[in-house]
Order: sequence, then structure tokens, then C-alpha cells
Amino acid sequence: MKRYFFEISYNGSSFHGWQRQPNATSVQEVIEDTFSKLQSGKEVPIVGCGRTDAGVHAKKYFFHVDLPEITNIEQFIFKLNRMFPKDIAVFNIIKVNEELHARFDAKNRTYRYFIHQQKDPFKECLSLYFPQELNFEAINAAAKLLLGKKDFGSFSKLHTDVKTNICEVYSAEWVASGKETYFEISANRFLRNMVRAIVGTLIDVGMGKLTSEDVITILEAKDRQEASLSVPAHGLYLWDVEYDF
Amino acid sequence: MKRYFFEISYNGSSFHGWQRQPNATSVQEVIEDTFSKLQSGKEVPIVGCGRTDAGVHAKKYFFHVDLPEITNIEQFIFKLNRMFPKDIAVFNIIKVNEELHARFDAKNRTYRYFIHQQKDPFKECLSLYFPQELNFEAINAAAKLLLGKKDFGSFSKLHTDVKTNICEVYSAEWVASGKETYFEISANRFLRNMVRAIVGTLIDVGMGKLTSEDVITILEAKDRQEASLSVPAHGLYLWDVEYDF
Repeated sequence: MKRYFFEISYNGSSFHGWQRQPNATSVQEVIEDTFSKLQSGKEVPIVGCGRTDAGVHAKKYFFHVDLPEITNIEQFIFKLNRMFPKDIAVFNIIKVNEELHARFDAKNRTYRYFIHQQKDPFKECLSLYFPQELNFEAINAAAKLLLGKKDFGSFSKLHTDVKTNICEVYSAEWVASGKETYFEISANRFLRNMVRAIVGTLIDVGMGKLTSEDVITILEAKDRQEASLSVPAHGLYLWDVEYDF
Repeated sequence: MKRYFFEISYNGSSFHGWQRQPNATSVQEVIEDTFSKLQSGKEVPIVGCGRTDAGVHAKKYFFHVDLPEITNIEQFIFKLNRMFPKDIAVFNIIKVNEELHARFDAKNRTYRYFIHQQKDPFKECLSLYFPQELNFEAINAAAKLLLGKKDFGSFSKLHTDVKTNICEVYSAEWVASGKETYFEISANRFLRNMVRAIVGTLIDVGMGKLTSEDVITILEAKDRQEASLSVPAHGLYLWDVEYDF
């Protein structure tokens, strides 16, 4: 068996997130079931680079899987793209050291949250329609406060399997130039619901409901009650994941 | 009453075309019903620049309607965009001479047909996934044969309410540069199903199944049986309509 990294992309609209779960279709389940078909029904577990919530998209996502040697990578990509549904695409397959782990070895992850301020019938499930005016200078001043190693407890759903809320944020900026308007954030790790809670809070800053000082207070509180409401899932994309291949 | 031209855009995925019809939701019906609500249930007929089939999109579409004077255009656009569903957007409202007619006074119409050759989960309903290689030089040589005043009977569904199949095609070109790949065609008028039958035929040229000579033979036959199958609706956009305002 050889270990392979698969670079894929998926439209999250029809999925209940990445992670396999009972009674709801997940991206992981669809992919594992496809591999299983190709190996006469044998179970083929795959390991993703992280979880994404229901409705969240992935522009670039990696998972690893151990498979018998793939003799023709290009042909196998073509075959899988025919087998996978329209909303999952494979772009690349990389043979890696058998120790490399899609989740633990990801050095940094980048998310983007897209909004559009003029109504656009072709962005319905791909971006949040937000017609109100936003002060992007104020937003970016507040976004700078997120940089560095910090406790993001105020921006996370409570869950028990995480030992620490410390994340190191490498960059956080709202890009509002020309056609596309999105918030991009890179960090070594993200807590559950973190990006959507941050975006909700920054939008409140952009609307003048919160100040940069309020954002500092929210961060220091380490309490999810302090931050703003989360924005909806359909504007959020896991955008990039980096490894040392 | 004043006559207004409305510039709108719609995602055709959920509609059975532009034209109002029994037992199926059309764009016209949704818009007329909205105007009717604003005028205490009074019927408000609108006149579109043309029909689009089920599933076909419109990037730019015009209709005309006679309404009591609109005092604040910008506010009215904002209000309508809140009332219309996500897949219909209003961009502009233009007060015109009361004689101007959205259908009869359109000088030329432009359609685009989009394909993508690499699988893309975010283009599902917005473009045709077509992974096979295409010879765009051969396609564009054949596309030139469509230019000018010609009988397009071979590229039209039969229907009785059209007196002539003569259309004047001003431009027809497949653009395949960088990210976007689409066929664009402008003409004074289009017959039912014409663009999709032309695109189906040009794709057969691009795959080497038909030659430019075959396209001449098809045009001369004036028989729908001669041309290739139509491509699906979801890649097609009414892209532009021109008037002398």
C-alpha cells in the first residue's frame, strides 16, 4: 500500500459538512464509498485535513488515503471525476511519505469568506448578499488585532475535544477591490465556527456597531457570548492548506 | 402612466423560462405578481425583450411596463430587489418614450454559451462541463460561415408563429482564452433553440466529427434533422440586448 494525498474541491451546498455522520450525506462518505466500490466493497478510510461545517465549501482540500500503487495518476483522476458527483472534483494526486498526515502535518490553513454587495442571481449559494455599506478601513484596523498567538475562545463553539483555544493567526484582511469582496484569514489552526464568528464581528465593526476597542474586549473575554452572531455557511471557503511535501 | 424599461438579470435554473405559462413558475409570472402586490392586486402586464427556454439564464434582460411615475428610482430598485427572489435582480430602471417596445425595438441580441473543461464544483448549473479536447480553430472557421443574412431553419425547433427563418448574424466566435471558454453570437433575432443547436453543431466540428463543409450543407438543407443535437440549457445566457434609448 502507498500513501497518497488527494487535492480536491467541493461545493458544500448539498453536504452536511466533510465529516462522516449517521443520517446525513457528507463529503467524506461519498468519497469513501467511491473508493470502496473500486476495491470490491472493501472499506477504505480516508483522513481529511480538517472538518468543514454543513454548507461550507472547499476550494482546496486535502485528504490522505492508503491505496495499492496507482499506475496512471492522470487516468485515475479522470476516472474519479466521472464517478464523483458534480459537486466534488479531484485536481491532483500526490504520492507521499507514508508518515505524512493530512490533518496533523498541515502547516497552515487559509479561509475566505465572500460577500457581494450588489444582488447577483449567479452567486446565490456561493457568497453572502450583503447590500449595506461597510467601512472596510475600520474592518481592517480591527482585523489586525487578531494577528499573532491568541486565545480565540470568544469565537468558538464549545466542544470538549479541544484542549486549547490558542491559535496563531498569520494574516487577516478584508479585500474589497473591484469585483470580489472577501475576508481572508490564515492560521496554524481554526476552532469550530471561528471564521464565521470573526466575520460576523468584523461586519458589525464595518457597520459602526462595534469599535476596535470592543474587539479587544471580546478577545479578552474568552466567552462566545461576547462576539457577534456567525454569518451563514454559504459564503465560507476553505481556500488553501499548506504542507511540506 | 409612464413607460419604464427595467434592466434585470436572472438565474434560470429554477424557472420554466421567461414566458408565463400554466402550472410552471416563470420569471415573467414572478415579476408581474410582485408589481401586482405593489398595486393592490391590480394586474400589471410586462413585456419582455424575448423568450428564454427553461433553465436558460439572462445576464442582461429588459422588459417594459407602464407604471405610475416612480419618484425615487434608486429606492424602488432597492425595494424590488428585496421583494424578488434571490435568482432575479434589478440593476436599472429607465424612463422611456411611451412608444418604445422591449421586444420590437431591440436592435440586436447577444447570447453566450459557457463551457468548462476542467471539472469545477462551483459552476454546476452555470456552465456545461465538457472535458473532451476541442479544436477551437476549426470551430471558429466554421462559426464564420454563420455570419450575415441566412436562413437558420436547420437550427430551429419547428413552430408556427414565425413567418421567416432569416436571421442576420453580426458576430459568432468561440472565445477560449484563459479562465473562461464561451461561444458568443450576436444577431438581429434568434429562432427558438437556435443558439443551442448551433453550439451542439460547432462542438461536433471541434471534435472532428463535422467539417466546415458539413456546416454549409446543414445550413443549405434548412432542416433541423441535419444539425447536431442541442446542448443543455444551463450553459446558455442571454448576454446583452441593445436599444436606441
